Amino acid sequence: MSKSGLLAAAALCALAAVSSAPVLADASDAQVNAVIDEGLNRSEAMTTASALMDGIGPRLTNSENYRRAADWAVARFQSMGLQNVHREGFDFGLGWNVDSYRATMIAPRRIEMTVMPVAWSPPTNGTLRAPIIIAPVGNPGRFELWKQEWKGKLAGKIVLTSLPGTTQEPTKPLFRRLDDKEIGEADKFDLPSFDPAAMDRRVKRVTYPLDLSRFLKDEGALAQVKISYRDGKLVHGEGYNYRPGETLALPAFELAAEDYRRLVRLAKTGPASEIELSLAARFDDSTLQAQNLFGDIVGSDPKAGYVMAGGHFDSWIAGDGAADNGAGSAVVMEAARILSRLGVKPRRTIRFALWAGEEQGLLGSRAYIEQHLATRPVDPKLGGIAAYAAWANAWPITPKAGYNDLKAYFNLDNGGGKVRGIYAENNIAAEPMLKKWLSPFDGMGASRVVTSKTGGTDHVFMQAIGLPGYQFIQDPLDYDSRVHHSNLDTLDHMRGDDLRQAATIMAAMLLQAANSDKDLPRQPLPTKPVPTDPFKVTDPDE
Amino acid sequence: MSKSGLLAAAALCALAAVSSAPVLADASDAQVNAVIDEGLNRSEAMTTASALMDGIGPRLTNSENYRRAADWAVARFQSMGLQNVHREGFDFGLGWNVDSYRATMIAPRRIEMTVMPVAWSPPTNGTLRAPIIIAPVGNPGRFELWKQEWKGKLAGKIVLTSLPGTTQEPTKPLFRRLDDKEIGEADKFDLPSFDPAAMDRRVKRVTYPLDLSRFLKDEGALAQVKISYRDGKLVHGEGYNYRPGETLALPAFELAAEDYRRLVRLAKTGPASEIELSLAARFDDSTLQAQNLFGDIVGSDPKAGYVMAGGHFDSWIAGDGAADNGAGSAVVMEAARILSRLGVKPRRTIRFALWAGEEQGLLGSRAYIEQHLATRPVDPKLGGIAAYAAWANAWPITPKAGYNDLKAYFNLDNGGGKVRGIYAENNIAAEPMLKKWLSPFDGMGASRVVTSKTGGTDHVFMQAIGLPGYQFIQDPLDYDSRVHHSNLDTLDHMRGDDLRQAATIMAAMLLQAANSDKDLPRQPLPTKPVPTDPFKVTDPDE
Repeated sequence: MSKSGLLAAAALCALAAVSSAPVLADASDAQVNAVIDEGLNRSEAMTTASALMDGIGPRLTNSENYRRAADWAVARFQSMGLQNVHREGFDFGLGWNVDSYRATMIAPRRIEMTVMPVAWSPPTNGTLRAPIIIAPVGNPGRFELWKQEWKGKLAGKIVLTSLPGTTQEPTKPLFRRLDDKEIGEADKFDLPSFDPAAMDRRVKRVTYPLDLSRFLKDEGALAQVKISYRDGKLVHGEGYNYRPGETLALPAFELAAEDYRRLVRLAKTGPASEIELSLAARFDDSTLQAQNLFGDIVGSDPKAGYVMAGGHFDSWIAGDGAADNGAGSAVVMEAARILSRLGVKPRRTIRFALWAGEEQGLLGSRAYIEQHLATRPVDPKLGGIAAYAAWANAWPITPKAGYNDLKAYFNLDNGGGKVRGIYAENNIAAEPMLKKWLSPFDGMGASRVVTSKTGGTDHVFMQAIGLPGYQFIQDPLDYDSRVHHSNLDTLDHMRGDDLRQAATIMAAMLLQAANSDKDLPRQPLPTKPVPTDPFKVTDPDE
Repeated sequence: MSKSGLLAAAALCALAAVSSAPVLADASDAQVNAVIDEGLNRSEAMTTASALMDGIGPRLTNSENYRRAADWAVARFQSMGLQNVHREGFDFGLGWNVDSYRATMIAPRRIEMTVMPVAWSPPTNGTLRAPIIIAPVGNPGRFELWKQEWKGKLAGKIVLTSLPGTTQEPTKPLFRRLDDKEIGEADKFDLPSFDPAAMDRRVKRVTYPLDLSRFLKDEGALAQVKISYRDGKLVHGEGYNYRPGETLALPAFELAAEDYRRLVRLAKTGPASEIELSLAARFDDSTLQAQNLFGDIVGSDPKAGYVMAGGHFDSWIAGDGAADNGAGSAVVMEAARILSRLGVKPRRTIRFALWAGEEQGLLGSRAYIEQHLATRPVDPKLGGIAAYAAWANAWPITPKAGYNDLKAYFNLDNGGGKVRGIYAENNIAAEPMLKKWLSPFDGMGASRVVTSKTGGTDHVFMQAIGLPGYQFIQDPLDYDSRVHHSNLDTLDHMRGDDLRQAATIMAAMLLQAANSDKDLPRQPLPTKPVPTDPFKVTDPDE
């Protein structure tokens, strides 16, 4: 070995010694470097993700699998040395567990079809075998006319209720990363808008599947079959948005588009096919509560409040719930591991939250808000999307004692793609601090702060009551094109490099927010807006 | 109605009268217009394709389904009024019929996996349940080393023999059409090359799966599982290239990449998974012959020879055998219907051919050549790829009496995309006539004649003996990216507009070739080439 080689080896040993002992320097830049070292050189993001997705699998809220995953996550939080590790229950409703399912065309020939049961479908009690009938409803606004047309014709049949549509021609790449131009397009102030009728229509649309299911059952149909909205043999088991205390009336299945369309074509030219359907599923009323999960790194200043990282821990039923949102859950857990391992002593408490019920209307994060942050006057008997709609538009907002304690919330729920920056959610006053905190990650492509508001996940109700809830910009990968809620949502479509980058940045953002001299600027407490277009006349069929 | 409206209506009535009576004008341009009218305005291409793909399904050579499809096609040819409708058998081997199959992970949790049996796999006789073992072979050249490593360790196991690889990132569009630049890139003369060692290596590679299957059975393994080469839940059932008189020794399955990789990851971290596999399949030795199918429109000049359209009628086992090659079969049948319907009286006979055994080495078209066109000195006991290799490289070629009668052969086997032109297969002398015949279809984007040679389908052995066998250029659509041999190869991924365009052009090309004053120029009878690189030393591991 040459002399320079020896020197290099000595330097490596010194580095190793530094790395193995937690770094507790006060200097923020050194702490960020320690986070980067731990997060990138000793990442456990993918092993955590694999334990969750491969070992446990999909985690429908209040299913046995969700509770199994919750036990595992609580044990992980405890083994990291987090404090105040606990669960907080909230009213949810029946659990639903699926054991096995299958769909086979029997006549005119045998085909193993690709299928998912629709979540909260009753079981078939063995194998159903019956001829199909093609009775597509089309626009839900036509439902009353459709009922008149099909009344008395569906008994003993398996009813195909979707229009077959036509095959997609995927002329854009399925997998992509954002370029600067695309990120730049999100850097705009979104004018607030308020259209009271729009939410009413949305509520009506999502209650329609239950009405349809009940009609089919009353008519003596044996099962309902709908088409996947994506082709390429992707299935999801979507089609019913859970309402507390209710379930679909009739076994319901989502068939791969190719299999569904073949049935429709065969029915056009010959006698309708006979198919076999089976679903072994169990409703579970042993508990009607769902569980949010928490762990803290307690801050040194009890009056400084807390910062929080979160992602929803529940998933949909297809695949293993990886991109949505095993990825975000694994990132939150890995950020907790990084900061625990480094033994940081932040000024503010750092809280790690794993939410339930997101897929049913952000119910877990809403429950946390109602328990700790603020209330809105909402009928507690409403559930699902109706509860969502009501909560987002109920006035006034009444802050609770904890309202001022939450200084920053960082959410991750846009799949497994690496972090590219953060949305400022129209809070232009917060942008300078967010920029400063992200600036160390410019070289990782993650430093952009854009003004736009975003929706659809657990920071939304915090923003809706004026609290600093933020969501990261992430590379989309193949989230929207094929992975989201589909049977492809497995760990295979995660990228280890992306997960460890995201976890590292999440940890660093938490640490900076927890130690910051100043709180993130807030927007004023929201008050009831006037309708954006007071002269709007709504199309009743819309 | 205005006067001009009345005139327009009268013109439409006149047009309708012309259209409903077959057009028998001698003028070639008028005949081409009649073909276009019949092919585009009264197309039956998609109903024919649906009857074949939806109603009958995949057509593995010498399976019950192939014979069912053959009966249907022969009846169609007869009902069109074709003459000499008949079958020609050739020695093939055992049939293989699949009834049902399933793969389920049982432990550590239950997952319905996506699977296809490998063609010519023996059945499982009920459901197999066993722990898996990960024993990837990697490079087939390592097989002997691998056997030493795994001997005595596989009894009672389901053996996973593939490397898991990593998930693809599909950054190019799955679906595409050719632009002029891409077509232009095929307009080049391919220098002939001859590398005797290359074919030997290829033969060795494809015999390896049988050796592996026998080793696994001797070791007491219960089943073999391999990974799909595409991800996104696509499965194919590939992995064994049939050899006459032989079958796989052990039940073999191809798992979706996502399901395979999950098993590998779980085996790395915990006890290996237990899985259940079932395959109900039947070998059939009731006939060992496969069948090519034919029908003619007999020409007016018995000395003028014949022209022929063809496509292979057999398919692989996944999906419904649509793009490969139900599309080509439907196009050939629709071209026959168009020309029959028009009552054309060509100078040369027009023959329509549907080949068997293409997927096992162009065996059907080779049998036709041996029966009618020319022979090569090949051991008749060789099968599959070995027979293919031997036949392509055996000398001398001995023409038969019928050698001079085949004046043109047009093959279609590049999926369901529309025709964009034709490959001249290095026969530059034929280009002017091909250009002339295609020129009416310039407005349909189909008039390009490019010089390149193409391989892999039933014109190849005709070209290999100096006969004018041609293959059309077609838009690829999503053939290579996801449809070819996969469970997505269903009618959904066909385009009705593309099929009717292709059938119309096929019909017009046949009619022009059948009525042409001059024969298409031929190349000289091929003689044994010398190796392109006489100094080449082959890597034994390649």
